[in-house]
Amino acid sequence: MNYSVMRYILGWVLTVESLFLLISAGVGFSYGDASVTAFLISAGLCALFGLPQVLIKPKNNIFYGKEGFCTVALSWIVLSLFGALPFVLSGEIPNYVDALFETVSGFTTTGASVLADVEVMSHGALFWRSFTHWIGGMGVLVFLLAILPMAGGSKMQLMRAESPGPSVSKLVPKTRYTAMILYGLYFLLSVTEIIFLCFGGLSLFSAVTLTFGTAGTGGFGILNSSAASYSPYIQWVLAVFMMLFGVNFNVYFLLIIRKWKQGLKNEELRTYLGIIAAATALVTLNIQERGLPLGDTIRTAFFQVSSIITTTGFSTCDFDAWPTFSKVILVCLMFIGASAGSTGGGIKISRVLILFKRAKEEIQHFINPRTVTRIRLDGKTVDREVIHSTSAFLITYIFIFAASVLLIALEGHDTSTCFTAVAATINNIGPGLSMVGPAQNFAFFTPFSKIVLIFNMLVGRLELFPLLLLFSRKVWKSGR
Amino acid sequence: MNYSVMRYILGWVLTVESLFLLISAGVGFSYGDASVTAFLISAGLCALFGLPQVLIKPKNNIFYGKEGFCTVALSWIVLSLFGALPFVLSGEIPNYVDALFETVSGFTTTGASVLADVEVMSHGALFWRSFTHWIGGMGVLVFLLAILPMAGGSKMQLMRAESPGPSVSKLVPKTRYTAMILYGLYFLLSVTEIIFLCFGGLSLFSAVTLTFGTAGTGGFGILNSSAASYSPYIQWVLAVFMMLFGVNFNVYFLLIIRKWKQGLKNEELRTYLGIIAAATALVTLNIQERGLPLGDTIRTAFFQVSSIITTTGFSTCDFDAWPTFSKVILVCLMFIGASAGSTGGGIKISRVLILFKRAKEEIQHFINPRTVTRIRLDGKTVDREVIHSTSAFLITYIFIFAASVLLIALEGHDTSTCFTAVAATINNIGPGLSMVGPAQNFAFFTPFSKIVLIFNMLVGRLELFPLLLLFSRKVWKSGR
Repeated sequence: MNYSVMRYILGWVLTVESLFLLISAGVGFSYGDASVTAFLISAGLCALFGLPQVLIKPKNNIFYGKEGFCTVALSWIVLSLFGALPFVLSGEIPNYVDALFETVSGFTTTGASVLADVEVMSHGALFWRSFTHWIGGMGVLVFLLAILPMAGGSKMQLMRAESPGPSVSKLVPKTRYTAMILYGLYFLLSVTEIIFLCFGGLSLFSAVTLTFGTAGTGGFGILNSSAASYSPYIQWVLAVFMMLFGVNFNVYFLLIIRKWKQGLKNEELRTYLGIIAAATALVTLNIQERGLPLGDTIRTAFFQVSSIITTTGFSTCDFDAWPTFSKVILVCLMFIGASAGSTGGGIKISRVLILFKRAKEEIQHFINPRTVTRIRLDGKTVDREVIHSTSAFLITYIFIFAASVLLIALEGHDTSTCFTAVAATINNIGPGLSMVGPAQNFAFFTPFSKIVLIFNMLVGRLELFPLLLLFSRKVWKSGR
Repeated sequence: MNYSVMRYILGWVLTVESLFLLISAGVGFSYGDASVTAFLISAGLCALFGLPQVLIKPKNNIFYGKEGFCTVALSWIVLSLFGALPFVLSGEIPNYVDALFETVSGFTTTGASVLADVEVMSHGALFWRSFTHWIGGMGVLVFLLAILPMAGGSKMQLMRAESPGPSVSKLVPKTRYTAMILYGLYFLLSVTEIIFLCFGGLSLFSAVTLTFGTAGTGGFGILNSSAASYSPYIQWVLAVFMMLFGVNFNVYFLLIIRKWKQGLKNEELRTYLGIIAAATALVTLNIQERGLPLGDTIRTAFFQVSSIITTTGFSTCDFDAWPTFSKVILVCLMFIGASAGSTGGGIKISRVLILFKRAKEEIQHFINPRTVTRIRLDGKTVDREVIHSTSAFLITYIFIFAASVLLIALEGHDTSTCFTAVAATINNIGPGLSMVGPAQNFAFFTPFSKIVLIFNMLVGRLELFPLLLLFSRKVWKSGR
């Protein structure tokens, strides 16, 4: 293990977090918040621990997959541990485990909250809460890669460990430029949403925080009613932008460089849009009540479908009160998740596609064992390695899921609560059903369960393996 | 497709079913049942359709995997379609879909019932209901293989399609002798259980029907209270024998030919016993109430654990009223299931073992992608082919599961009912939770949902692919 590079990168992570905290302090200052000091102290602590590491350059830049995964996992843990400080120091979330839960929920773009009343929070704290979504959405290490001129083969390893999906494709040969393009697109889409929201009459503060929640597919709102009290126009804007942020960013890149055909023919994109359309139609049929305008029902259905499949977690209604069929559809969407290479969570459409084709291939194999079969995605043969590791992803996912539900069940809440609390955190959604439904929050869990759920959020955002590696003795045993 | 062999085998299946129905008619006759005529007519119909097929020998015996899987799937469907007749003809279950549900539930050793009151049933009907468990447990085609001197390469294909587990190993070089040994062991263990039960004061009729339910890991009882009203001794006997029938029969064969070490070192056996011990301990701790004798709690815990992991489905208490933690343990056991090569259902211990090792291997792969890894079971390297098809099994299983829950959810019952109704049928258990809990039955479902659940029971018993093949156009398209 090249500990000196790991130390160096973690130093940068803290330094950048210090800057992010200063921005939040600035927002708080402009509103005359009492919490400004807490943010300044936190920013100072981040700088205190981060800056010295940055000043000492690492001895060598040689860096393998193992170090990449561990560094990314540790970065997210460190980021969360320090990010929770302002909540505790300002007394807005006095309990550290609760503050950590809220922060991890922010960075991992989960949006599960321990707060029953978010409207009493200071502007700075609300801004920071939503800002963590925006940072976590595209990834903090991807951000570092975009701004830091780092040498060595380390960059792609970091990008691979932080980007969601079964395989990461570079947009351009240089990793740094790929990261810059991704953040550029992310920034552009975010600004567009802010403009659309402001146009609908929202204040800049509301527009920015809601956009952070949408862009990162996070789901923290600034009102207790989530998105229910906004105008139909705002709800449509949010629903459409949630859907847009759940698209693989490679598609946008292809569209920008005018490779229209290649971009729009993308199989994952078509499946994603197809599932959204089908789910919206089915839910609409299922929840439509006599006398109510169909347009409203379609908006409600589309909003929750878009919110859940992208794993954002905003809500305009209490879908826990929906008929079972619609609830089961939402639970299925929770697991399917958004596209690879988007800011959304879940298993990811492209993985589901690969797995579905693998199942069909197996039936083929039973019919004629000697036929040589291939699995194709976007017309290209998918590497056997990718197929097998996608299967292994699903297997590992199920084991972690089952173990987590068992641990949460120790508290004795109903099975639906246990099951969907884990589903909502490991898939980075936010709300689940029953006691963790959209009208509820996660405050009632014991610290033990909260730590299990914190693990679930991190393991889900980092797609299992980077975090699991930290628990393997083999990683730490031998030097290279 | 070699249709002439398929026709021939299906003819034998019906002929043998005719004999089984005659036995039930005999039992009914000895108790002076009014339902005897119904059984005689059904037996006659089976013979009418079956015998002519048997008399015309097939043109050739060449037979491939494809034909094997389809024949097995069709055999089970035909068996069930005819096996439902006596219930309808006698008027004991007048609705044909209900009767088919009960019969499929019997043959697939599920044990889910549409009957609210089994105690009003005639002796012949009760015997037939339990007898289907015994026939389905070890498999009707394995039975045919044991009694019929069939030529050609067809035998192993049939055995492979009907026997549960990721890979079938022959005990002895000849398939026919393997089938005979398996049925011999099955018969021997069954007789032993009957003796133990009679020793506990049960009537021969009770002992035989309960043994059928245990041996096939089915779960149909002859009392409305399932196994709750039996003495502690009887409950212990049932619990132990359920556990014994969930063991891979290869282990018994090894013990009989005195390969003690090899038999007892079996990794699947050790995991199976380990899970039962751990689950019993955890449930005991979780449900133990002050003042109640610990021995009773252990018996109750062990009974339900043994019943659920072996997918039998007998119960001595309403475990739907247990704390969530114990219920979640039972749900986990529902999916894990019994050993490969046993009469139990579920995903199977050996598959879970292979999948767990595959997950660990993937973590290894992330640490060092260039390491060559192997997955071992019982000290032997597991074939890559087996590992990949085990993964494909899990993937296909999940897709079928999700689709079934969605279809059942259309009825609008609570999510726990929908989820566990599918879990209890696809894993061939019987009772689930909520509205399909051990104190309830499946009568309330619409015919549509019942057909979905019938599909689940068959697809679960035949381990997915044989039944799925029937729906593939490619199977029926071309001759060979």
